[in-house]
Amino acid sequence: MGGDFGPPETVPGVLAALDAHPELTVTLVGDSDAVQAELSRHDVIGRSVSIAPSEGKVEDDEHPIAALRRKPNSSIATAMRLVQLGDADMVVSMGSTGATMATAVMALGLLEGLERPCIGGNFLGVAPNTTVVDLGSNVDCRPSLLLNFAALGVAFSRRRLGIENPRVALLSVGEESSKGNRQVQESHTLFRESHLNFVGNVEGMDFFTGKADVIVCDGFIGNILIKFAEGLGSALVPYLHHRLSAVLPGEQVQQIGEALWTTMNLPRTMGGPLFGVNGLVMIGHGSSTATGVAGAINTGLLCHRLELVEGFRQELAELHRAVVRET
Amino acid sequence: MGGDFGPPETVPGVLAALDAHPELTVTLVGDSDAVQAELSRHDVIGRSVSIAPSEGKVEDDEHPIAALRRKPNSSIATAMRLVQLGDADMVVSMGSTGATMATAVMALGLLEGLERPCIGGNFLGVAPNTTVVDLGSNVDCRPSLLLNFAALGVAFSRRRLGIENPRVALLSVGEESSKGNRQVQESHTLFRESHLNFVGNVEGMDFFTGKADVIVCDGFIGNILIKFAEGLGSALVPYLHHRLSAVLPGEQVQQIGEALWTTMNLPRTMGGPLFGVNGLVMIGHGSSTATGVAGAINTGLLCHRLELVEGFRQELAELHRAVVRET
Repeated sequence: MGGDFGPPETVPGVLAALDAHPELTVTLVGDSDAVQAELSRHDVIGRSVSIAPSEGKVEDDEHPIAALRRKPNSSIATAMRLVQLGDADMVVSMGSTGATMATAVMALGLLEGLERPCIGGNFLGVAPNTTVVDLGSNVDCRPSLLLNFAALGVAFSRRRLGIENPRVALLSVGEESSKGNRQVQESHTLFRESHLNFVGNVEGMDFFTGKADVIVCDGFIGNILIKFAEGLGSALVPYLHHRLSAVLPGEQVQQIGEALWTTMNLPRTMGGPLFGVNGLVMIGHGSSTATGVAGAINTGLLCHRLELVEGFRQELAELHRAVVRET
Repeated sequence: MGGDFGPPETVPGVLAALDAHPELTVTLVGDSDAVQAELSRHDVIGRSVSIAPSEGKVEDDEHPIAALRRKPNSSIATAMRLVQLGDADMVVSMGSTGATMATAVMALGLLEGLERPCIGGNFLGVAPNTTVVDLGSNVDCRPSLLLNFAALGVAFSRRRLGIENPRVALLSVGEESSKGNRQVQESHTLFRESHLNFVGNVEGMDFFTGKADVIVCDGFIGNILIKFAEGLGSALVPYLHHRLSAVLPGEQVQQIGEALWTTMNLPRTMGGPLFGVNGLVMIGHGSSTATGVAGAINTGLLCHRLELVEGFRQELAELHRAVVRET
């Protein structure tokens, strides 16, 4: 039901993912009539797709916790219950990120030692090996929370991107440990004393310089950065169009513009896993079309195969063992 | 003396600015031998350029205040004194931003009602009418300081960009007043009660959507954003090169790459005025070549003609009058 478009995009997205992955079985959670109406527009005979009916959905402008109390059988709550009961291996949602996170925490629980989940990953096609945490759920983070997020980022970098010993850095306004706001200065000490492969502070340009594999920041900044990149991508397409349309055929200009837009908007076409809950939950972009829905499912299948959640669990356990050893 | 290259770039930059602006008179402040050596490589007969000797320079990795105490006749201190004594109308520096700001505050003083200066301006060619404050000098800002910065941004937007009644917004992670970190939530109330044309919170994509003319954020975030854009520009040039070189002649690819880089790096070619001190001080990018030096001087001449400092003074006075009226 989620996302800006609901079944008219999520259903075709699911069917595309089923085409690409015959081993996949999908349960569509939502309002039966709406989902059935969309399914009836496609040929679904013999395909592994079924409907789990739910009641209502959590809207973007609702307070997640309050909405979940009011709508205990909303689509996101019903979907999460399938994973909680072992009837599904992952949830894929294009709906309210806040509601998805809150439901995931309530239904699946947090990994041991963690206070809050976060969102992370590589979000720029021109920086494909740079993992960033937190990309936008937690503002005003204490240093110990950032350290836990760093461990989750390390697990992602290792399992998903194949980087054996990821270098971890704090995002700041200068490399020296004295640079940065109070949060970063306090975190710097904690990170330096941890078992992480901490390489110090990096700056805004270092998403692209390869100085670190995992860049850690507050979700306030992470969210601003991901939306800034998204907006910049949207602004650069007409800019390039203007410069290129005099010298290249329209179709080529179009292709170059689309490729640029995609590289600035990886989460729109790939989705990303929620970090830190006891189960696999994929967050898709709210404005995803069918391509984005299929992309989020694809990424989810990969994360499942890589046992990403187990990686998160191990990395957090290692972090907390190391902290106990030191104290 | 400042910047990554010193006289070999600053001197040719000055000469280029003199060519473009015959009314200009320039005093080169620095080590006489080094400046003279560079001048001797050019034809300077009859040109309005002289040398004011100084002793030493403040390096980027020095603590500004401590360095200024150790080197009271450094190039930046000597240059600032020329403005302080009325012997020059503005200082243009490619050197340590911290040192330039600290010297400006000490020698020229802050505008009335202000606790700290800041850096602001429009920094992206694809968002030419969006003014951002603070771009990077003040971390951990209290709401009242952000409000003062907002007034400075309004003055810049009005005088420099010609926007009559600039709409002011706070940078956050959602439009609702409840969204954001504590700093933004507290600032929101203060901004709403002020006389500014406050339009609420905006998000990271709104640098490009025209929802606000002046976007206000902490210097920690501003600095990260400006460097992020810079790094992204540098990463997009080879990305585009790769995609375009198969279909366009090398020279055109080069031109498009350079234009894109410039649009992501306005401060490198234009410099920007320091906001909030009692005199005109232009901050150039440390890596400026002669073009960047000439650009910063050009921008400075424009700011001088527009009486930007007087605009800052008036806007701050108006802000404080309004606050007094309300309390």
